[in-house]
Amino acid sequence: MSGYASLKEEAWSANREIPVRGLALYTWGNVSAFDPQKGVFAIKPSGVPYLDLKPEDMVIIDLEGKVVEGTLNPSSDTPTHAVLYREFAVNGAALVRGIIHTHSTYAVAWAQACRSIPLFGTTHADHIPIAVPCTPYLSREAVERGYELETGNLIVETFRKGLAGTVDSHSSVEGSGISGSGIVAPLDPDEVSMVLVGGHGPFAWGPSAAKAVYNGVVLEEIARMAALTLQINPSAKPLPDYIVNKHYQRKHGPDAYYGQTSSVSSK
Amino acid sequence: MSGYASLKEEAWSANREIPVRGLALYTWGNVSAFDPQKGVFAIKPSGVPYLDLKPEDMVIIDLEGKVVEGTLNPSSDTPTHAVLYREFAVNGAALVRGIIHTHSTYAVAWAQACRSIPLFGTTHADHIPIAVPCTPYLSREAVERGYELETGNLIVETFRKGLAGTVDSHSSVEGSGISGSGIVAPLDPDEVSMVLVGGHGPFAWGPSAAKAVYNGVVLEEIARMAALTLQINPSAKPLPDYIVNKHYQRKHGPDAYYGQTSSVSSK
Amino acid sequence: MSGYASLKEEAWSANREIPVRGLALYTWGNVSAFDPQKGVFAIKPSGVPYLDLKPEDMVIIDLEGKVVEGTLNPSSDTPTHAVLYREFAVNGAALVRGIIHTHSTYAVAWAQACRSIPLFGTTHADHIPIAVPCTPYLSREAVERGYELETGNLIVETFRKGLAGTVDSHSSVEGSGISGSGIVAPLDPDEVSMVLVGGHGPFAWGPSAAKAVYNGVVLEEIARMAALTLQINPSAKPLPDYIVNKHYQRKHGPDAYYGQTSSVSSK
Amino acid sequence: MSGYASLKEEAWSANREIPVRGLALYTWGNVSAFDPQKGVFAIKPSGVPYLDLKPEDMVIIDLEGKVVEGTLNPSSDTPTHAVLYREFAVNGAALVRGIIHTHSTYAVAWAQACRSIPLFGTTHADHIPIAVPCTPYLSREAVERGYELETGNLIVETFRKGLAGTVDSHSSVEGSGISGSGIVAPLDPDEVSMVLVGGHGPFAWGPSAAKAVYNGVVLEEIARMAALTLQINPSAKPLPDYIVNKHYQRKHGPDAYYGQTSSVSSK
Repeated sequence: MSGYASLKEEAWSANREIPVRGLALYTWGNVSAFDPQKGVFAIKPSGVPYLDLKPEDMVIIDLEGKVVEGTLNPSSDTPTHAVLYREFAVNGAALVRGIIHTHSTYAVAWAQACRSIPLFGTTHADHIPIAVPCTPYLSREAVERGYELETGNLIVETFRKGLAGTVDSHSSVEGSGISGSGIVAPLDPDEVSMVLVGGHGPFAWGPSAAKAVYNGVVLEEIARMAALTLQINPSAKPLPDYIVNKHYQRKHGPDAYYGQTSSVSSK
Repeated sequence: MSGYASLKEEAWSANREIPVRGLALYTWGNVSAFDPQKGVFAIKPSGVPYLDLKPEDMVIIDLEGKVVEGTLNPSSDTPTHAVLYREFAVNGAALVRGIIHTHSTYAVAWAQACRSIPLFGTTHADHIPIAVPCTPYLSREAVERGYELETGNLIVETFRKGLAGTVDSHSSVEGSGISGSGIVAPLDPDEVSMVLVGGHGPFAWGPSAAKAVYNGVVLEEIARMAALTLQINPSAKPLPDYIVNKHYQRKHGPDAYYGQTSSVSSK
Repeated sequence: MSGYASLKEEAWSANREIPVRGLALYTWGNVSAFDPQKGVFAIKPSGVPYLDLKPEDMVIIDLEGKVVEGTLNPSSDTPTHAVLYREFAVNGAALVRGIIHTHSTYAVAWAQACRSIPLFGTTHADHIPIAVPCTPYLSREAVERGYELETGNLIVETFRKGLAGTVDSHSSVEGSGISGSGIVAPLDPDEVSMVLVGGHGPFAWGPSAAKAVYNGVVLEEIARMAALTLQINPSAKPLPDYIVNKHYQRKHGPDAYYGQTSSVSSK
Repeated sequence: MSGYASLKEEAWSANREIPVRGLALYTWGNVSAFDPQKGVFAIKPSGVPYLDLKPEDMVIIDLEGKVVEGTLNPSSDTPTHAVLYREFAVNGAALVRGIIHTHSTYAVAWAQACRSIPLFGTTHADHIPIAVPCTPYLSREAVERGYELETGNLIVETFRKGLAGTVDSHSSVEGSGISGSGIVAPLDPDEVSMVLVGGHGPFAWGPSAAKAVYNGVVLEEIARMAALTLQINPSAKPLPDYIVNKHYQRKHGPDAYYGQTSSVSSK
């Protein structure tokens, strides 16, 4: 019997949530669950419909992206997940224990528009304290070196540079939620749990695979709200920083008071 | 046994309607029910999914915002509800017996756009006789004093000043539904049963918790219709006052003739 | 037992279709069914939820708008239905045997924008051969004389004047589907089975109550398609007349060849 | 017993998928399945609701568009299907074994806007390597000669001319996914599995009737994403060709590595 049964179960259950939440058509999305002790993650097999998935179909992958256990091909996006766990989770991000990638409609539209999603309101600020960063396109050289691996590297590099490295960085910095300096590098994956890859689509993560899916739903909804906000008022302004900070802290700060416990909760 | 069983039941039932009507994802909304005799209201506990709620989970709160009965943390927005009941219901608004707050998509988009929703048509006029007012952002000082309490005060203050105190007040006054003077202060919460908080989202109320939910659904729909109206015709004009008054009065006036009784009905 | 049982059944069944097709929230719409022999129509009672309706709740109304049979108040829009049957059906329109009025979202948005819906494509041309006409606002005098009755008169008057009498008549005439003269008065209710009332919303009709609902669904969909068309290409052009005529005739002309019979079919 | 039972079953099953995927209201769409050995295809009968269809209702048609077997009238669009099988499948397109035509909302909006759908992102590039071509309007002469047959000829002619022959060809060529020359004629129906007919709507095809439906769903979704992309950023740029090629090849090239086999898979 597999020594990864519970990790597979976690990943399986989170992948089944994708169609329930309307995040993807057909098989256009995948979730993984990471076990930092064992240094492996469980991920969806490539191209298998969600409703056909069984827990034992999940593929176990190490941080080099190699298959540890499983007979099916893992998601073609597996190298991207591996990079993010390796660079974010291993380097101290306590809240990167699950990752989701989908082609959810509104998040993709912002990614295709190559625009970071401005922080227009409290729904957004409840979850991340700055604009949702959008990376530039992957370079030709990076695509040639290895598309999925370099997609992960591009995300890591974007977080290293901070909002100044995102596309549409001007409006992003404005709604950055960071009072004062205007310098916001690097981004902390424990605070900024979502990103858009320019021309492609969204990735999100969280302290579990289920919370990663939750953040994927949040991203899709704030992407939709922001598109509508711009349609109603093309010169809409980002939310003032003092409101951003209040909302983010009441859910995520040391004195968070949302929900039924004092611990960090994204619900 | 609780002396507030029926009030809890009313609040519970109305909260369960939120996901049915698509007004909120996850736990992003709450409804309360007010008992003016007892001077308390029942409200949703914070962060509990709607489908997990039981009537006895509702928390009983007094008008100072203190917990009277209940073991769970009340909604983090509880102080806002308390202010609105205290300032509106106690001061004579007969139709503020239930309050809803959600992050419904189109209403949030208008709030993020910091625009009052112009009164473009009869669907809107059937329910409130002026633009849906949008408050300015809460000030830095107010956020520091107490975010949720001051959100309530901001709404009350906005109603005291009338439409001139809302953001985007020019277009609001145009479609105000008030013939003649152009002076429309203060707003009457018995007539204007909904509001947007700038950068945040909608609050609505009604003569019961169920009617508050109904008004929350109405607000979301007229927000959606108005966004589409602007997209089709960016220079769309507010409905003439004489049609506004006719529609509002046929449902809400002393000679209302909509529905099966001659009494006030919002359905 | 009622002598109008089958007419009530027809109206009841068509009203139940409204929520199934997503044409109205709550009770925001009504359908009637007309019997030209008896000179009466059956209509939904006012303010009763669709799922609570029973066939015997339908109210029988004559062409003066008077109740012939029924204990509930008829829809507040009853005088509008009466005018349309009296002016259209009695004067020879063979295909006005059922009428629907709702506040469906996209049709309302066009009505609030005070724009006729340009005939952009074949989905539209399959059903009506010109732009969907939008009436001007009802005048102050008409509202004072009798709102619902005058709404009917406004529609009749608009059809009498033809597209030149609609709002946004320039673009309407362009996409009129009428080759040559540019003079298109009056409109024929047997051909043009739908209309928008400016600032209010849609009315549609058909050879039965069920076909009226069908046309209400068509109107909502072509309203949605046209709004999206304008968003994608703000200078989109109406479909050339020769394609309009072809599409309309293959479904509705004497040599119609759509469907399983050679008779007129709107499906 | 029919010698075409399995072909009818395939077409029937694919037609039933249309309402499940929300591609058409009422009977506004049809799918056919082609048997290249027998030189016939099975297609939906005209005007019959999807849920009423039985496999034996499918009509068998030869490549001249003549009924080979079946008692019901075939879809009025049958001559278009016949032309496409004759000109594409018989001339070597291995992947044209099923065809779908619907009036799905967003694809129709682009067709009505007379714009090819720019290739903005990887969701699009995963399926076709260039803009979704939009034909010009059918000419008056072609409509007079035979509407449905000439619709097929127009699609074939558009593929022969390549993107330079589409409407809005400038932006199409930009996002063509073809490095270098800029000359992209003719289009290969094995690569470009979808098209918009100007002023009308979408056609799509695939290696089976089920895959044709899949491509119809893909087209509707990329049409929706592209409309939102333009709304967010009216000057959005097409995806660079090197990313287009990478995405298209990882799913469709000789070294495709998406899914569970190394063969061509559109899922």
